[in-house]
Amino acid sequence: MHLHACLLLTLIGLTPTRLSAQPGAPDLAPPKRGTVVTETLSSAILRENHIGLVTNRRIKVYLPPDYATSGKAYPVVYYCHNIFWDNERLFEDGKLAALLDRGFANGIAQAFIFVAADYSTPTTGSVYENSLVSGRWLDFTTQELVPFIDRRYRTLRHRDSRAVTGDFMGGRGALKLAMEYPDVFGSVYALHPVATGNGDLPWASLSIDWKSIHQAKSYADLSNNGPTRLFVTISQAFLPNLNRPPFYCDFFTEPQNGELKLHPENARKTKRGFHLEETLEESAANLRTLRGLAFDWGRFDPNQAHVLSNRAFSRKLEDLGVEHEAEEYRGDPWNRTWTADGRFYTRLLPFLNRHLVFEASH
Amino acid sequence: MHLHACLLLTLIGLTPTRLSAQPGAPDLAPPKRGTVVTETLSSAILRENHIGLVTNRRIKVYLPPDYATSGKAYPVVYYCHNIFWDNERLFEDGKLAALLDRGFANGIAQAFIFVAADYSTPTTGSVYENSLVSGRWLDFTTQELVPFIDRRYRTLRHRDSRAVTGDFMGGRGALKLAMEYPDVFGSVYALHPVATGNGDLPWASLSIDWKSIHQAKSYADLSNNGPTRLFVTISQAFLPNLNRPPFYCDFFTEPQNGELKLHPENARKTKRGFHLEETLEESAANLRTLRGLAFDWGRFDPNQAHVLSNRAFSRKLEDLGVEHEAEEYRGDPWNRTWTADGRFYTRLLPFLNRHLVFEASH
Amino acid sequence: MHLHACLLLTLIGLTPTRLSAQPGAPDLAPPKRGTVVTETLSSAILRENHIGLVTNRRIKVYLPPDYATSGKAYPVVYYCHNIFWDNERLFEDGKLAALLDRGFANGIAQAFIFVAADYSTPTTGSVYENSLVSGRWLDFTTQELVPFIDRRYRTLRHRDSRAVTGDFMGGRGALKLAMEYPDVFGSVYALHPVATGNGDLPWASLSIDWKSIHQAKSYADLSNNGPTRLFVTISQAFLPNLNRPPFYCDFFTEPQNGELKLHPENARKTKRGFHLEETLEESAANLRTLRGLAFDWGRFDPNQAHVLSNRAFSRKLEDLGVEHEAEEYRGDPWNRTWTADGRFYTRLLPFLNRHLVFEASH
Amino acid sequence: MHLHACLLLTLIGLTPTRLSAQPGAPDLAPPKRGTVVTETLSSAILRENHIGLVTNRRIKVYLPPDYATSGKAYPVVYYCHNIFWDNERLFEDGKLAALLDRGFANGIAQAFIFVAADYSTPTTGSVYENSLVSGRWLDFTTQELVPFIDRRYRTLRHRDSRAVTGDFMGGRGALKLAMEYPDVFGSVYALHPVATGNGDLPWASLSIDWKSIHQAKSYADLSNNGPTRLFVTISQAFLPNLNRPPFYCDFFTEPQNGELKLHPENARKTKRGFHLEETLEESAANLRTLRGLAFDWGRFDPNQAHVLSNRAFSRKLEDLGVEHEAEEYRGDPWNRTWTADGRFYTRLLPFLNRHLVFEASH
Repeated sequence: MHLHACLLLTLIGLTPTRLSAQPGAPDLAPPKRGTVVTETLSSAILRENHIGLVTNRRIKVYLPPDYATSGKAYPVVYYCHNIFWDNERLFEDGKLAALLDRGFANGIAQAFIFVAADYSTPTTGSVYENSLVSGRWLDFTTQELVPFIDRRYRTLRHRDSRAVTGDFMGGRGALKLAMEYPDVFGSVYALHPVATGNGDLPWASLSIDWKSIHQAKSYADLSNNGPTRLFVTISQAFLPNLNRPPFYCDFFTEPQNGELKLHPENARKTKRGFHLEETLEESAANLRTLRGLAFDWGRFDPNQAHVLSNRAFSRKLEDLGVEHEAEEYRGDPWNRTWTADGRFYTRLLPFLNRHLVFEASH
Repeated sequence: MHLHACLLLTLIGLTPTRLSAQPGAPDLAPPKRGTVVTETLSSAILRENHIGLVTNRRIKVYLPPDYATSGKAYPVVYYCHNIFWDNERLFEDGKLAALLDRGFANGIAQAFIFVAADYSTPTTGSVYENSLVSGRWLDFTTQELVPFIDRRYRTLRHRDSRAVTGDFMGGRGALKLAMEYPDVFGSVYALHPVATGNGDLPWASLSIDWKSIHQAKSYADLSNNGPTRLFVTISQAFLPNLNRPPFYCDFFTEPQNGELKLHPENARKTKRGFHLEETLEESAANLRTLRGLAFDWGRFDPNQAHVLSNRAFSRKLEDLGVEHEAEEYRGDPWNRTWTADGRFYTRLLPFLNRHLVFEASH
Repeated sequence: MHLHACLLLTLIGLTPTRLSAQPGAPDLAPPKRGTVVTETLSSAILRENHIGLVTNRRIKVYLPPDYATSGKAYPVVYYCHNIFWDNERLFEDGKLAALLDRGFANGIAQAFIFVAADYSTPTTGSVYENSLVSGRWLDFTTQELVPFIDRRYRTLRHRDSRAVTGDFMGGRGALKLAMEYPDVFGSVYALHPVATGNGDLPWASLSIDWKSIHQAKSYADLSNNGPTRLFVTISQAFLPNLNRPPFYCDFFTEPQNGELKLHPENARKTKRGFHLEETLEESAANLRTLRGLAFDWGRFDPNQAHVLSNRAFSRKLEDLGVEHEAEEYRGDPWNRTWTADGRFYTRLLPFLNRHLVFEASH
Repeated sequence: MHLHACLLLTLIGLTPTRLSAQPGAPDLAPPKRGTVVTETLSSAILRENHIGLVTNRRIKVYLPPDYATSGKAYPVVYYCHNIFWDNERLFEDGKLAALLDRGFANGIAQAFIFVAADYSTPTTGSVYENSLVSGRWLDFTTQELVPFIDRRYRTLRHRDSRAVTGDFMGGRGALKLAMEYPDVFGSVYALHPVATGNGDLPWASLSIDWKSIHQAKSYADLSNNGPTRLFVTISQAFLPNLNRPPFYCDFFTEPQNGELKLHPENARKTKRGFHLEETLEESAANLRTLRGLAFDWGRFDPNQAHVLSNRAFSRKLEDLGVEHEAEEYRGDPWNRTWTADGRFYTRLLPFLNRHLVFEASH
């Protein structure tokens, strides 16, 4: 098809040069616009939780411009959003849909369906784990969300035509889903993922208000600092303890003779669960089956642990013989992703185009 | 023009999607091939040297496929090769020309002329400095090479249509030329540049065979280890001393009471000259005038000083308010640059396309 | 004297082994206690300021146990405290005096006078600079404090018998004083100094509330976050502007077309002043004259920029041929300094003992 | 005893201050000298090997000055030397014995017996592992060496009175022995240990001459570069294969379709064995029983992987709640250990004095 196009272009006196379909080229015509639909998925899986989850989950679905008319089936790209965020806000300013519109129009990627579920919670939002306390979010995604979308839309129902993506904690989610469910997702691109590893500081040096955690009678009593809230959620994921209200979990810092002290065994369990590199070896065989694996990150994240961890994660993948892309870019993770020539448009879209299967071949 | 193309494509039933002009798309037709010409430039500037430079310099010139027929003037991209290398070997395996051919055919970049001079020497090759001892290579490039090319070829004779590029020490050269001669070169892309900064080790810890340097009666007597030879060249660039054969320079390690010791003042002078970050502040105003400034590097360079230095160089540019791109990629600097979907093709070519001026507008 | 002691010990049948005077040995007898005196120094120099400095400064002076009876003159060790701190709190819990008492009793160090001036201010406390806006603290120290102590106490009035020490920002102060006034202080030990260099983040990525700074009508209006307040003080030190109330300084982030943007030139000036490594080269000759130069830092400082900067500072000293000690220890900077076998007792005291001159020899 | 000494000193008019027993004090009288004995241990365990080990092992034993006359039993400190080294050379220049003599005389440490076995081999020397191919060195040490010494000398036969020490690869050995045999050794001090972790480079980026390894018919055919030889020994330790002469092991780079390629599974096995941090979790309980655990390293090791690994090792110990000391010092690992005020004298000796039990109390 490419050949034909080139020939045609030559015939009509256009050098391919002028097509400028590469990232960054100016767009002269406004691209056709896709449609964003909001669905509601009533989750059975999420009923099991101790943090007051809403079980009717709102799902945002972007359908490509030609969806209504083409009659054909599309690959689906799933997106995992960050904590302290939700899928409504993801679409709010219109940038994401506009980048998809433009990317499809400019040939940066062939058309696909883009799905962003709501992973927000009454606490921090999901850290993309299965937890008896805070929700089985991996099961929700693979057992409810994907079938739900496949039922309702013309999708290519094969892992080769499914990708999982996300940013920050959602980038962790994307990688985790790829590590565990390569039968569901054939490609993964994580934008500035966090929690891939540990970074330079021991956990005893993290700025967590343990006193507030151990004195709280409810979630509302918690110190309103990010790491403190996040580490409650992390503890609910990896140290569940249904007999211990109000958070129904243990912690890696516990009282010991009246003093709050590092609990090494709990720290180990939590790290082992939370830091993706700790189970990378077990997932290596899964990851080797992927069609595409990529992540990137901004060098100037004020939390340099994210940067150090991602570098180390790439090194470990290399040692495990897992093919991947891992680019560290100039900028912080906020100012380079959603711009006109940002990572989403110039890196993630071409990656999906290279690795997704766009035709029903199975 | 893009608009017309899109309309046409739509009319003939092709979605732009299928043009796949983005990096990594398969090429179905063999692209038209450019021509590689070898010229000889007789340099007056390089006559002044004490290392036996050949003054007739062979210059490789790649002319784009349509050069012979188009009648139009082209931008020129200059390439600085690494030490222990030369411009013949750069073209030897045909990969570089093939990537240019393919990039032009696929619309990754509009056509330009690509020039690689011979920066090799009887010793290590140029470190891209003006030295009374080892040659005034910056002057050679800006005062002889560029005018030579502009005289002999249909070029766009303006800095906006000139870029300077290079790899390793040649990447240093490209950056140095951009720092000092923004009137000559309007864009720069350095592939895995070295010597942008210091890295983690003090110079006293470098594995240089100082004994061999201080005992040598001629260049041939030098220990055959890379750093030792390189640091003689570096010393010739930044510590010239015409009264001190056989190398006509001082060193940052000098005999002191019979022992070879760090000479802090010479170390300072050498670092100040060799490490680009040391003069970055003075060059910031120049760099801010550039149309495009980019460099990249491979995370797994066995010499991690290159990696650390490039990270720090990017940070310093940021602090100086100099717009730039600085990507650290997975891989070592050898296995990711010249491949079909490597840095040259997917990063450097689109960069040049974005920043070079392809039409005579001045 | 040491010889006599050894002979005597041998005569009386004791092996020196049992004296156990090294750090960490148990102390069986309570050591004799020194005396802490509080003096008031009325400063003329500090009158010149725009932040409402109190010019009667309280000075804490620790006199060794035998001061009252010995009749001899002592070396003096000056201490620079951290920002958000003062010299009263330094002595409050009695630990510092107890460590001195014990150190003198156990022969870890010969006796000296220990002086801690009050460097607190109505804002953050001194960053140990001469500023028209926030006080000429270096001049205060060298021109008023040292003479004041020398007048009032039996001191050895020579730089060889004076050391300057401090922690965190006071560690910066100690190093700065040593860099600039080697005629006043012959030795320096900085405990976990900050601001020796930059670390990994560009300044645009620091978490400073610039809006609050640019909107404040008085110091009280400032956002109550540490970095924001600190960077006002830093700006007062390095970007003074007496025509610009309420802070009488410029900033490295300034409004530009209605947006707050990095002001590279101001950033450069500020870094050049604040980060000690930027002027290290100019101070190298001074530092080479010192009898002793040491600093240490805790690996697990949550602000890893301090750790990275200190490593780089040591590397730069090495390259400048400046003899020094630079130890990175396990722990954070708070839990290892003032303990019974902490850095103050096991590193700083022996260092002072090695480098101070304890007898009037000049 | 300390009390008595202090009283006596006070009586005779000496302040303890003048005893100056702390590190770095000048020594006026030559200390009494210990005796270095060379023993031969005929090893049964080392008979099992495929690299031609000499089974009569020479053991160097330093007996403290008063050993002959005191009649009492002493603690024993075992020393593991580096690869490409042996125990004869360790004692050759007399420095080690002199530091022990001086340390005992000055009260830096109470007297102990110091034992250094010969861990050299016809290849690189031991990497301190049990290997069917290259010798069961851990078994040799714990089952033959320690009992041998305990039989022949007046030793305190309890782990509390035994320490294991070593430098570089011997530092790894010391840590490994402590991790696995806390019943034998109660304290450990590793001087600049290597192989505690991985550092920044993936193994595919190491400069190993795999071709030479895979073509060699005997050890003599091996490329004479350190890493290549070392990795053969490492492979013999962790990938033994008695059916595969000449080296009787597999490798982490193996031929695959005619090309030498990373073998991820073998890489994993090797790293898991070789890098101590990989099994640290399993050893944490052992390490928590130790009386003392310390290691240090020089910041300016040209192989920065050692530095990075040791930092990470300390961090991991912290997270596992294992008490330890971990100091990074200015200097490279060669110029700071054996000097008069170097790490051995000012750090290792006081550490042993603090943690060894010097009296038979069990």
